[in-house]
This record gives sequence, structure tokens and C-alpha cells, in this order.
Amino acid sequence: MTQSALLEQIKRKKSFLCVGLDVDQTRIPLDLKSDRDAIFTFCKRIIEATAPYCVAYKPNIAFFEAYGLEGWKSLEKVIDFLNEHYPEIFTIADAKRADIGNTSKRYAKAYFEQFEFDSVTIAPYMGKDSVEPFLAYEGKHAILLALTSNEGASDFQLLNTEGKPLYEQVIEQSKKWQNADRLMYVVGATKAQALQKIRTLIPDSFLLIPGVGVQGGGLEEVAVNGLNDTCGLLVNSSRGIIYASSGSDFDQVAGSEARDLQEQMAFHLRQKGII
Amino acid sequence: MTQSALLEQIKRKKSFLCVGLDVDQTRIPLDLKSDRDAIFTFCKRIIEATAPYCVAYKPNIAFFEAYGLEGWKSLEKVIDFLNEHYPEIFTIADAKRADIGNTSKRYAKAYFEQFEFDSVTIAPYMGKDSVEPFLAYEGKHAILLALTSNEGASDFQLLNTEGKPLYEQVIEQSKKWQNADRLMYVVGATKAQALQKIRTLIPDSFLLIPGVGVQGGGLEEVAVNGLNDTCGLLVNSSRGIIYASSGSDFDQVAGSEARDLQEQMAFHLRQKGII
Repeated sequence: MTQSALLEQIKRKKSFLCVGLDVDQTRIPLDLKSDRDAIFTFCKRIIEATAPYCVAYKPNIAFFEAYGLEGWKSLEKVIDFLNEHYPEIFTIADAKRADIGNTSKRYAKAYFEQFEFDSVTIAPYMGKDSVEPFLAYEGKHAILLALTSNEGASDFQLLNTEGKPLYEQVIEQSKKWQNADRLMYVVGATKAQALQKIRTLIPDSFLLIPGVGVQGGGLEEVAVNGLNDTCGLLVNSSRGIIYASSGSDFDQVAGSEARDLQEQMAFHLRQKGII
Repeated sequence: MTQSALLEQIKRKKSFLCVGLDVDQTRIPLDLKSDRDAIFTFCKRIIEATAPYCVAYKPNIAFFEAYGLEGWKSLEKVIDFLNEHYPEIFTIADAKRADIGNTSKRYAKAYFEQFEFDSVTIAPYMGKDSVEPFLAYEGKHAILLALTSNEGASDFQLLNTEGKPLYEQVIEQSKKWQNADRLMYVVGATKAQALQKIRTLIPDSFLLIPGVGVQGGGLEEVAVNGLNDTCGLLVNSSRGIIYASSGSDFDQVAGSEARDLQEQMAFHLRQKGII
């Protein structure tokens, strides 16, 4: 999917919400427990209830990988379901992959050819040749970790590296890589102040903000500091939506939570003159 | 597997060789093409031929993941085959995983519980809480990327970060993490000079050296600079062994290549007084 198609969807739905699918079998409502593929059924019902209010889904690959072969089967069904029924929705494999170039090519094949995701999250530590294979696909995107929202983010990402924090080095160097226009960036919402600086470095790029909700980031601060003229934001909520209710109404309540966020986002999109 | 059990095996086999299983379907010998699970059969024959000469196997997860569900089935068969027939051999999931703590727990579950590997390679960018979940398992190990062997290693790992290269920051900080004695480190063999410095920082840790062979590192330089009193090295060769012949004798030739490396390693182990 191109970034302009993504923007069209953002305008139509008045939303820049991404719903994270971090599906933990132990938190699936009791009445799904006897389902033969409870993970897929849970995701399907969440998607059906939230699709009117979001523009992206982000399956967290670890949560599928943890269940071995059964988990991969569920993941395949989820991405196939999304591509068949909601082809306009942007899909993110939250996989944090990257390796030497020859190996990164394999990961790109996995997520862009085997599973037809629109994008995959990428770790930057191994540098240019570990990321470029993900940028070689037209209409696909690599979402590079810049500043993450977890406690350990400060261990290395904030260290002063030749005059600036490491995450700024990552952003600046990555702009020189081949097909850099297909890059997006992960920026933790709990560091919303840093957004202003990041926007000066990459004014036009889409940013994936993972930390709204349980991780403690606030939507307003993110919108004020992060929105650009073509939106440029995807704000994710996972647990705050998918586990909003543990009852059999989990999908309805998830839809309602997603709508609440969408309405707040519509306000900010209007403020910015995007819709 | 404990590090002392690994050392016992090293002494017995007079080897610190790790064989990398980067299995590319397009490079599998023609007479296996009709095999229903050519990837597994290829790995099985490579393992049977090389097991007397190596102490570790390192399946490169991307090469399995690239084939989707079929790839994961093959990987499961490979690790089960290793654990059943060669329980004394150290197994490494070369996966370069890591995410926020809650998600890293899922990756740890995948590789240490679903697939029973002894260790997994880990990317450090997200810091302490992204790595510690992999260190919570007794007898299991996280192998942290420090200095990699690819071209892009210089993009960030060598940057001057508060007075030292970033990879030294990674090594020094990681020593303070919980269960740090279960850490090992990836150090590219093409940077053998840096080994001397790294040995002063972590004199006792095992280092996984991925770059001998196709990536251009030399065994002698690595052994001279990297061996400690308890060996402390696992030197990997992938393509130089598994694709040494493209004919039906691929396993015999792989065994022969592995034996050549083992003999060189025995020399260095004797020089160092370990055997």
C-alpha cells in the first residue's frame, strides 16, 4: 500500500488509529476457550468490531510465535482474513527483525511474500545492509525502531553518540539508504517531547507511536507534536482495546474503545486542517 | 545446557565449531528436490555427517521463516531431531529477536519452551528489559549482538558513544543485568583485532564468532585473540560447510570440511593448554 492510499483512508475514516493484536491465550474470554482456533476467532471478532474506526492492524508476531506451529497457522489466517476482507487497511508485522543483508532478504520474503503484510518493524543495530532488503519492495514499508517506549530505551538509544542521542543517528543515517522514502519510524509516545525534534529531522515520514494506553503515553501530546500536513502518524493501542472487556462482549467493548480514540483523532485531524 | 557441559564437549571433541544451518531451497542438491521435506532431510544429513566434529548447531531462523508454515514445520523437525539424537550438542536459534519486556517473554517462550533450543541470538537496541526475559531460564543462554561482521556494523556499533564504541557500551551495560552469567556475545570474526579489547571487558564469556569462511574471517587470528582458559569461543561456519558440494556427496564433503576446521581447532586448543 502506498502512503497516499494510507492517507486517503485516514481522511475517510477520520482516524489514524492502529489496533495492536497482542493475543494472549490466557486472556481470551472464557466462551472462546473451546474454539479450535481461539486466537484467530478472537482476532477476527476484534477486527470486525474495530475496522470502521482504525486504519491499521499490528499483529505482534511474538504472541503468535510463542505458540509454535499453531501460532503461525493462526497468524496466516489473520493476515489472509485482513487482506481478503479489509484490503484498504494497512497491515504491520510487528516483528522487530533484521540480520546481515543475505538473511534480512529472507525475513523480507517471509513478511512481504509468504505473509502479505504492508510493512514490518525493524531493529537498526546492524545498520544499512540489514534494513535495505526490506525497502526493496514497491508499496511495502520498513518501520525502523528509533526511540522506543520501554524502560530499556534509555540504555542505548539516549546515549550521546558523536554529539546527539543514538536514536537521532539512526534517523539521520537511515535517510541516506536506498528507497528511504519507504521508511517509517517507531517513536514511543511516552517520549512525546522528543517528537518535536524528530519532526525537524523527518518532517514528512509516518511515525508509528506504540505507547498510547497501557504504556502511558497521551494522545493529545502526540497529536500536537507529531501530526504533519499529511497526518504522518499511526497511533497504536493494543491492550487498551482488545482486553477492554474479558466478557463475551469483548468485541463490542473493543469497538467502543476504538471509536472513542477515533473521535479524539478526528478532532485533532480537524484542528490540523487535514479533514 | 550449562557452560561447563559445553566445555566438556569441547574438550572431548577437540573442537569449538558451530555449524550454521542457513538452508536455501534453491541450493539444495538436485537429488533431494523430490523429497517432501527437502530442508529437513538436507539438515539431517548435514548433521549426521558433521556431528563428530562440531559442538553446536545454529539454524538461521530467517531461512525457515521465509517458507512460512512449511518452514516452521521443518525447523521443528530439525530441533527435535537434534535434541533426540544429539542431546550433548549446544543449539542456537539465530533469530536476532528482542522487544519490550512483555513481548520478549513471548519470544523466550517460543525458543526455550516450544522449540527447545539452548540459546537464542538477541538484538540489544531496546535495552535491559528486552533482554532479561531470555536470561530467566536456568541452563539457557542469550547471545547478545555486540560487534557484527556485516558492512552495516560500522553504521552504529562503531560510533563513539560517550567515550567508547557503542558495542563496548552494550557489553559493559549488559554485565549488570540480571543473570548476566547466562549471556554470551556475537563478535564478528572480521574484526578479530577488537577481540583483544573485548576479552579485557568479558574475559570469561563465550563469544559466538559468525564470520569464518564466506564472510572473510580467519580462524587463526580469532583463536589467538579470542580463546580463554575455558575456550570461550564458538566459531561458526555456514555456507563454507553446508554448500561445500552441490552434488549428492554434499554430506560427505560437509563432514570433511568440518573435520578440517576441527583439526585446526584442536591445534589451537592444545596450544592454549585446554586439551
